[in-house]
Amino acid sequence: MALRVEHSTEPEDLACYGFDASGLKGEPALVAWPRSADEVAQVMKYAYDKDLAIVPRGAGTGMTAGAVPAKGAVVLSTEKLNSILEVDPEDLNAVVEPGVINGKFQRELAGRGYFYPPDPASLEFCTLGGNVAENAGGPRALKYGVTRDYVMQLEAVLPDGRIITTGVKTHKGVVGYDLTRLLVGSEGTLAMITKIRLRFLPMPEDVSTLIAYFGDVEAAGRAVSEIIASGILPRTLEFMDSECIKAVEKFRPTGLHTIIDALLLIELDGYPEVIEKEAQRVLEICRNWRAKCEVASDEEARQKLWDSRRAVSPALYRISPGKINEDVVVPRSRLPEMLAAFKKLSGESGIPIVNFGHAGDGNIHVNIMADRRDEEKYKKAQGLVKEIFRKVLDLGGTISGEHGVGLTKAAYINMEIGETEIELMRGLKRVFDPKGLLNPGKIFK
Amino acid sequence: MALRVEHSTEPEDLACYGFDASGLKGEPALVAWPRSADEVAQVMKYAYDKDLAIVPRGAGTGMTAGAVPAKGAVVLSTEKLNSILEVDPEDLNAVVEPGVINGKFQRELAGRGYFYPPDPASLEFCTLGGNVAENAGGPRALKYGVTRDYVMQLEAVLPDGRIITTGVKTHKGVVGYDLTRLLVGSEGTLAMITKIRLRFLPMPEDVSTLIAYFGDVEAAGRAVSEIIASGILPRTLEFMDSECIKAVEKFRPTGLHTIIDALLLIELDGYPEVIEKEAQRVLEICRNWRAKCEVASDEEARQKLWDSRRAVSPALYRISPGKINEDVVVPRSRLPEMLAAFKKLSGESGIPIVNFGHAGDGNIHVNIMADRRDEEKYKKAQGLVKEIFRKVLDLGGTISGEHGVGLTKAAYINMEIGETEIELMRGLKRVFDPKGLLNPGKIFK
Repeated sequence: MALRVEHSTEPEDLACYGFDASGLKGEPALVAWPRSADEVAQVMKYAYDKDLAIVPRGAGTGMTAGAVPAKGAVVLSTEKLNSILEVDPEDLNAVVEPGVINGKFQRELAGRGYFYPPDPASLEFCTLGGNVAENAGGPRALKYGVTRDYVMQLEAVLPDGRIITTGVKTHKGVVGYDLTRLLVGSEGTLAMITKIRLRFLPMPEDVSTLIAYFGDVEAAGRAVSEIIASGILPRTLEFMDSECIKAVEKFRPTGLHTIIDALLLIELDGYPEVIEKEAQRVLEICRNWRAKCEVASDEEARQKLWDSRRAVSPALYRISPGKINEDVVVPRSRLPEMLAAFKKLSGESGIPIVNFGHAGDGNIHVNIMADRRDEEKYKKAQGLVKEIFRKVLDLGGTISGEHGVGLTKAAYINMEIGETEIELMRGLKRVFDPKGLLNPGKIFK
Repeated sequence: MALRVEHSTEPEDLACYGFDASGLKGEPALVAWPRSADEVAQVMKYAYDKDLAIVPRGAGTGMTAGAVPAKGAVVLSTEKLNSILEVDPEDLNAVVEPGVINGKFQRELAGRGYFYPPDPASLEFCTLGGNVAENAGGPRALKYGVTRDYVMQLEAVLPDGRIITTGVKTHKGVVGYDLTRLLVGSEGTLAMITKIRLRFLPMPEDVSTLIAYFGDVEAAGRAVSEIIASGILPRTLEFMDSECIKAVEKFRPTGLHTIIDALLLIELDGYPEVIEKEAQRVLEICRNWRAKCEVASDEEARQKLWDSRRAVSPALYRISPGKINEDVVVPRSRLPEMLAAFKKLSGESGIPIVNFGHAGDGNIHVNIMADRRDEEKYKKAQGLVKEIFRKVLDLGGTISGEHGVGLTKAAYINMEIGETEIELMRGLKRVFDPKGLLNPGKIFK
């Protein structure tokens, strides 16, 4: 059977679709650019009949190699499935194809006065399909939740080419099992998503952005707990440690104070009168923890602060191109304890560990600054990963808050998930994908 | 093997556990009152070895016969699994056993300044385990979402007696498939829940309750759409039609105006200054639709309004003990159209249809006022159910927003869910329950 969908087997195309942001590489045999669910189904059936692995692929911005193809795999790119099909202002939801870029969708809605909260750091590149497959978060997850909380319906194609629709167009619905939330976060291992109905919100009336510099990390952690406990839910509560701040100021100077131990970037949104009240309370709490605080006076100052925050990842890559980046989460109250443990591990091993991330969620991006070219040090750094995971799990946490398991964490999943539960998950996988063709090697080893 | 868990096979006990709020009856062979997950596992293994059906049971307040046991089944009551095990004010979550009454949990939290939003009408009787199994909602679901949005972790027992733990203790987590949300709303067909970690919120500072009387149903529907579109999210936006209002005033007079076509009971919560601002806007919108509005001036007036709302169900049962109650949902914007269609169906059939419910969600409780004793009329009424479902689905809706499928809607599930999707669901069921012992006949015929 000939494949009547746009595709290529040219080595230069295959090279482009063989890797992702994890830095790992695979060797696909074919890449296809379907333009409809029917075309996806055609490619799926083609691969199914030949027992070829199938790897759905958005923008390849994932950190755990979820889009790195198995050897000989067919890559299904969502590049040509990139339309916003419907925006319904009355029922506050939209239908999009999986290849739509998150940032483009945000802007399209913002132009009409609406707001789509999930905002992964890669929002100018990553696709909504990838966001659904990974259950992406972002700084605003603290107040607004993650991608899962916005997905109402999915259209998806099973490996044998059958097209399914899950979920409801309504605010509520309890008919049958929740296939929608089973597909969300399934990392392309159950079905290929071809259409997504996402709910959205009215744009908050106003936003206020504050920065608080702390003399020690623990004080920052305590301030986070106290802000939340006071009943205030900022839309973001981002954390950067001193190494992180120094790296950013070296990479893209914006005037952050570098002689401190930690900073919190705090953003409040809603009605102006409430923000004002909440901001005063937040400043009071931070100052009680001896922080030096600043309020962004205008949009320019606000953007400057966010530019610093978004520069963290490239700045750290510049220092250590081979760094290992994990995105662990602990219950918010255990944050100071976790950061203290990382400091100790770093001291003992002599390998710098740099931390930043979503402190309000207890979700920290841990960067182990080792270089792949220094083999011995890199091996030591990889050993640290397991120690970090163990500590996080001991504190009641999880080994991934946003990035998923993919290839890079597949070896660690049994540290967190029990044997029976993994057996159930493998059983669920078989229901959707009895031949095991969809994104093999991901999540489960 | 003798069963070493408190249980009974006495006819008077079996009679008590043979029915639920749906009015349907079953014939269990044994009822057990386990006090721990281990005891649940013992009963499960006992039933598993003998190939007996197993029916988990909370308070039996479900409307779709989800707790009505199959003939010869073992009923697993959660009555003795009724402890609040942990309340963590720092990380804002609690661990409960499934038999804890929703209202008791609400009060326990309220006493400490916290708030658990899901509030099904039966909250003084229904259990949190039942709420999870049915993914219960309630009036506050409009602003705060449903039970699913509050479940962080579950402990559950598989039919073969293995105990599993799902989910995370943290705000985020993306390791493996989402077993938690697969169990939520699975109506006791996948596993028996034995422990639940629920997140909760700080208590809103203030609440304001308004009532708006409308001259016609359509105006009420339009007002609902306009309130939401204006960016205001009331915590409740409840609707009652004229028949409903009259029934309530007859059953428990509280001074509702009865010579109108519809009313909206609107509740706003949050900071006092915001509520004030939002209330003014809501009143303005309602008055533009020619509504007569009142604001509850104090807690007593507020409670009186809610007493009326909570009296709806008993009041309608008094008029028509055999009434058929469905809980359909349409996209909010289609509400006026749906209510007009029901009016037409009622006129054509000569059978009164009385409507109330969660207008803000598009979720309406449709009451077909027929009496089981009048066989011909009752048959006609049952015919109406299918027509109502067809109309709702044509409008992009779902046949159940809160009550689930259970036994009573199992015959209709394929009106909403496709063949392939049902096949997948049955496949998922087999992964958890290969012998098909758990709550047989529910969801799927």
